Amino acid sequence: MTVDELPRSESLDLPPWPEGHEVAVSLTFDVDGESVAIGESSANARRLSLMSDGRYGVTRGLPRIRALLAEENIHGTFFVPGWVADKYGSHVRGLAEDEHEIGHHGYLHRNPEDLDLEGQTEELQHGLDSLVSLFGGNPVGYRAPYFAPTCETFSLLQGLGFIYDSSCMGDHQPYLECCKGIKMLELPVHWSLDDGVYYAWTPQTGALGGPNLLFDTWFAEFNAIASEGGHLVLTMHPHWTGRPHQLETLHRLIREMRRAKKVWFTPLLQVAELYQPRTKD
Amino acid sequence: MTVDELPRSESLDLPPWPEGHEVAVSLTFDVDGESVAIGESSANARRLSLMSDGRYGVTRGLPRIRALLAEENIHGTFFVPGWVADKYGSHVRGLAEDEHEIGHHGYLHRNPEDLDLEGQTEELQHGLDSLVSLFGGNPVGYRAPYFAPTCETFSLLQGLGFIYDSSCMGDHQPYLECCKGIKMLELPVHWSLDDGVYYAWTPQTGALGGPNLLFDTWFAEFNAIASEGGHLVLTMHPHWTGRPHQLETLHRLIREMRRAKKVWFTPLLQVAELYQPRTKD
Amino acid sequence: MTVDELPRSESLDLPPWPEGHEVAVSLTFDVDGESVAIGESSANARRLSLMSDGRYGVTRGLPRIRALLAEENIHGTFFVPGWVADKYGSHVRGLAEDEHEIGHHGYLHRNPEDLDLEGQTEELQHGLDSLVSLFGGNPVGYRAPYFAPTCETFSLLQGLGFIYDSSCMGDHQPYLECCKGIKMLELPVHWSLDDGVYYAWTPQTGALGGPNLLFDTWFAEFNAIASEGGHLVLTMHPHWTGRPHQLETLHRLIREMRRAKKVWFTPLLQVAELYQPRTKD
Amino acid sequence: MTVDELPRSESLDLPPWPEGHEVAVSLTFDVDGESVAIGESSANARRLSLMSDGRYGVTRGLPRIRALLAEENIHGTFFVPGWVADKYGSHVRGLAEDEHEIGHHGYLHRNPEDLDLEGQTEELQHGLDSLVSLFGGNPVGYRAPYFAPTCETFSLLQGLGFIYDSSCMGDHQPYLECCKGIKMLELPVHWSLDDGVYYAWTPQTGALGGPNLLFDTWFAEFNAIASEGGHLVLTMHPHWTGRPHQLETLHRLIREMRRAKKVWFTPLLQVAELYQPRTKD
Repeated sequence: MTVDELPRSESLDLPPWPEGHEVAVSLTFDVDGESVAIGESSANARRLSLMSDGRYGVTRGLPRIRALLAEENIHGTFFVPGWVADKYGSHVRGLAEDEHEIGHHGYLHRNPEDLDLEGQTEELQHGLDSLVSLFGGNPVGYRAPYFAPTCETFSLLQGLGFIYDSSCMGDHQPYLECCKGIKMLELPVHWSLDDGVYYAWTPQTGALGGPNLLFDTWFAEFNAIASEGGHLVLTMHPHWTGRPHQLETLHRLIREMRRAKKVWFTPLLQVAELYQPRTKD
Repeated sequence: MTVDELPRSESLDLPPWPEGHEVAVSLTFDVDGESVAIGESSANARRLSLMSDGRYGVTRGLPRIRALLAEENIHGTFFVPGWVADKYGSHVRGLAEDEHEIGHHGYLHRNPEDLDLEGQTEELQHGLDSLVSLFGGNPVGYRAPYFAPTCETFSLLQGLGFIYDSSCMGDHQPYLECCKGIKMLELPVHWSLDDGVYYAWTPQTGALGGPNLLFDTWFAEFNAIASEGGHLVLTMHPHWTGRPHQLETLHRLIREMRRAKKVWFTPLLQVAELYQPRTKD
Repeated sequence: MTVDELPRSESLDLPPWPEGHEVAVSLTFDVDGESVAIGESSANARRLSLMSDGRYGVTRGLPRIRALLAEENIHGTFFVPGWVADKYGSHVRGLAEDEHEIGHHGYLHRNPEDLDLEGQTEELQHGLDSLVSLFGGNPVGYRAPYFAPTCETFSLLQGLGFIYDSSCMGDHQPYLECCKGIKMLELPVHWSLDDGVYYAWTPQTGALGGPNLLFDTWFAEFNAIASEGGHLVLTMHPHWTGRPHQLETLHRLIREMRRAKKVWFTPLLQVAELYQPRTKD
Repeated sequence: MTVDELPRSESLDLPPWPEGHEVAVSLTFDVDGESVAIGESSANARRLSLMSDGRYGVTRGLPRIRALLAEENIHGTFFVPGWVADKYGSHVRGLAEDEHEIGHHGYLHRNPEDLDLEGQTEELQHGLDSLVSLFGGNPVGYRAPYFAPTCETFSLLQGLGFIYDSSCMGDHQPYLECCKGIKMLELPVHWSLDDGVYYAWTPQTGALGGPNLLFDTWFAEFNAIASEGGHLVLTMHPHWTGRPHQLETLHRLIREMRRAKKVWFTPLLQVAELYQPRTKD
C-alpha cells in the first residue's frame, strides 16, 4: 500500500432541495432481524432470547415504524438483508407497497471486510437475487453490513447497477467516495447517528446512552446540518427504534424537526437522483 | 439449521385489565445472591467483597424491597435460584407469606445456553426441588439466568407444568414464543428494562448509567406501554435496586406511574392466567 | 466449598451520632500514586503519562484536597499504600499533622485475591512497616486494594491489631463481615460511591460518567442514607477528585450536604470506635 | 527499577497572562487523518469506512475548524503526524498561513511506548523531516501519539531542539516533567479534556458521552482553572470536533468562556515562551 492508493473523497455541491425545503432528512432503517447473530455464528440459532430480540425488529418493530411514517407522511429507506427477504417476505413486502425505498444490505449481514472477493460477490449476488425475487425491481442503493464496505464491494456494486452507497463517513453531505478508479456516490452515515450506539446493550459491551442522549445529539446534528442546507442521514434498526419508548423518541424528533425547519423527508434514492446528472459528468 | 427451524413469535391480543386499569406493571426481582458469581466459578467464594455484594441482595436489599412493596400495597414476582432457597431459606420464605409470586430462576444461575440437555435438566430439576421444598407449591413461572433459555429449556418447563417464561424479547406485550412445536406463553423482558444495565459496575465493564437515566428511560417506556394499554415488565435485582438511592428511585417511579395512570401492579402470574384460556385453545 | 463456609454478615444497630448529628459522612481517599500501575507491571514505569497521572494524586491532588478539608474543617481518612509512604514521605506526612486518619492500603496495591497467604502477609506487613516508620502510630483501619480482601486478609489484620476493614459491600451501614470464625467490623463501600467509576478513563475501558452524574448519584445516596440516620462512606482518589473541576464537585457536594442536613463529617476511625464496645461483646 | 528512578514533577509558578487576561486557553488539535488506523495495521487501508472517518478530519473537519477559529480570531496548535503532512500537504499547509502553531505528532502515529529507541528515533526524525519539508520552520512542541511518551522520547526531543511536550498529566498547569536527568517543560493534558472520550465510538468500545457531557465537563474545568488564573489545554481531533454538531459545541464553549472571563486564547508555543527564561535557569 502506498499513500496514493488510499481511498479518497471528492466533494460535491449541495443541490437546492425541492420546493424550497431548508434541509433534507433521510430516515433509514437496517432491517436486520436475526441475520446479524446468525451471520456471526449459526450456533446462535439456539439462543432463544437473542433470536427473539432480532426477530422483534421484523415482526413487531417494522409495522410500528411503518404506521408512524404513514401517519407522518414520510417515505424512508429500508436496507433489507436478502436472508430477511427470504424468511420474512410477508412482513417486508409491504414496505414497497408503502412506497418506501428498498436498499441492499448483504445477504446474511456478513462483514465485507472479513470476506475475500469471492465471498463478497456471493453475499452481494445472493442478497440481490432475494430482493429482486421479493420486490421485483432492482435496488440501486447499498449499505454495507457494519458500515464496512471495501473497494471490491464498490466495484461489484458498480457492475450491478447500483448508484449510491450509504456506509462511509468521509463527509457530512453527499460526496464521491473514490478508490482504485471507482467513484461511488456516497450518502454518508456516522456512528453518532446510528441508534445502536444509544440503545444497544449486551453483557459484553455494557454501555447504554438512552433516548434523551439520542434525541439531544440528533437534534443538535439536525440543526447544524440545517444551517448548511444539508442532508441528514439517520440510521436506525427496527429492533431498537421500533420498540415503545424508542419509537416515541423518533416521533418526538420528527415533530421537533418540523417545528424548527421546513424539512424535506426523503428516501436516499431521491437525493441520489438529484446528483445523477453531475456524477455522470 | 434451516430458516424454518428458527424460533418464532405468535402474537396475542391484549386482554382488558381488571377493574378498568389502564396499564399493567409487573415489578419482578431476580434474587441472585452470590449464585451468579459462584455459578461462574467456585473460586469466587474466597472473594469477600464480591460475595458481600451479592449477599447484600438477600440479607439487606430483600427486606427493604418487601417493606416498600408492602407500603405501596404491591405484589411482585421474585425469581429465586434454588441455591438461594437452600442457603437463605429464612430470608426468602417470607416472600410467599407476603403473597408475592415465587418464580424459578435455575439452581446455581447457570446459563442454559452453556449447558447440554442433561445439564439443563439438572439445573431445572434441582432448582425446582429446592423451591418446592421451601415454599410448598410448584412455581409456574420461569426466568432463565442471563435471560438465556433454549428450546430444550422450554421443553423441560412444559413437562414440569410451567405456564409461562419471562426471558425473551420478541414482543413488548405477552406473546407465544414458539420453537420446535412448543408454544410458550412469554411475558417479555428487555435489556433496557433491567436495572443491571444502569447500576452494574465491575472493573472489567466500566459503564454506569445511574438512577436518573434508569428513571427517565423506564418512565418513558411506561408511558409508551400505557398508551397501548399494555403490560410493562421491569427486571430488578435486590443487590442493586435494594440499595439506598436505588430503592428511592423505584419508589419515585411507582409514585409517578400512579400519578400518571390507573396502574394495575400485578405479579406475572395473574397476567399469565388472563391468557390461559386462550393459549390452551 | 460448601454453602456453610461462605462469608456472611451480622447486622449491627446504628448508634446515635454525637451532638445530635442526623447523618455521618466519611470522606475517604485512596492515595495510590503510581502504585496501581507499578503493582500491575514494573514495565509501566517507563510510561511517562501513566506515571504522571498517578503521581498527580500525591503531588498535586493531595495538597488541594487537604486545603479544601481544612477550609471546611473536615477530617477524613486517607488509605496510603506503603510504597507511597516510602516514596512520598514528605508529601503524605502532613496528613497526620492535619489530624486526618491514616489507613492501610497494602504495599504496592497488589490485589489480595491474586496472592497466596505468603504474598498477602508480605504485602500487609511491608505496608504496615512503612506506615509505622513514617507516621509513628499503628493504623487500625484497612482498605484492600481493588476492594478485594480475602478471609486470610482478615485473619492477618486481626493478628496485627486492626479494628475495621472498609472494602466490602454486604450492607450500607456498619456491620460485621464474618468468615471462618472471624468477625471484622466492616465500614462498607460500594462501586457507585467510588469516584473512579465516574472519572476513570483508559483507551481500553472507554466510559466516562462525569461530574454531574457523580454529584447527582452521591447526593441521592446521601439523602437516602440520611433518612435512616446512617453512615455514608465515599471513596475518592486524589488523582481524580484532586483535579480542578472534580474538586469543585466535591466542594459543591459538601456544601449541599451541609445545607440539607446536620452532618457529622468524620474519619472512619471515630465511627469504628462507636462500635467497639458492642463488637467486643 | 528503583523508586528513585521514576519520573517526577517540578512545579512552576503561573506567570501573569498578557494584557490582564484572567485565564489562558489553548485549543489544540491532533490532525490524525488515517494515520491512527494505518499505524495500527496497514491492512486497515482496505476498510473504506474506517479510512473515510479518519480522512474526514483532514479534508472536511480541518477547514471548518480553521473557519471557526478565524471567525473567533483564535490561534490554536495543530499537532500533525508526518504522514499526514506528506499525504495532505495541500490541506494542512494553510494552517501555518493562518498563523496557527504546528506541532509534532509522530510520523505514522505509532505509540512510543511500543517502540524501542531505534523505532522512536525513526518516528521522530521521519515526522520532523516531513513537517520541515512542508512548513519550513522547525516545530518546537510535541504531543506523543496516544499521550504516550517515554523518557527516550524526551531525550530525543531535547536533542532536536524541542522546548515543550504536551502529553503528560502530572499537573493541571505548566510544569517540568523530569526523567533521568531531563527536565521537559510540560503543558499538560488529561483524558477528561480529550474530545475522543466523549465522541469516539467503535463496535468494540461501545460508549458515547455526547456533546452536552463534553460541554458541561469542559466548562466546569474552565471555571476551575480560571479561578486559579491557570492554563487550560483542550485536546481535539478534526474528525470528531470538526463534525457538525460537535463544531457547534466548540463554538458554544468559546462563546460561554468569553462571556464568563477575560480569556487569552493562545497557541501552546506562546505559553511555553513565557516559561523559557525560568526553565533555562
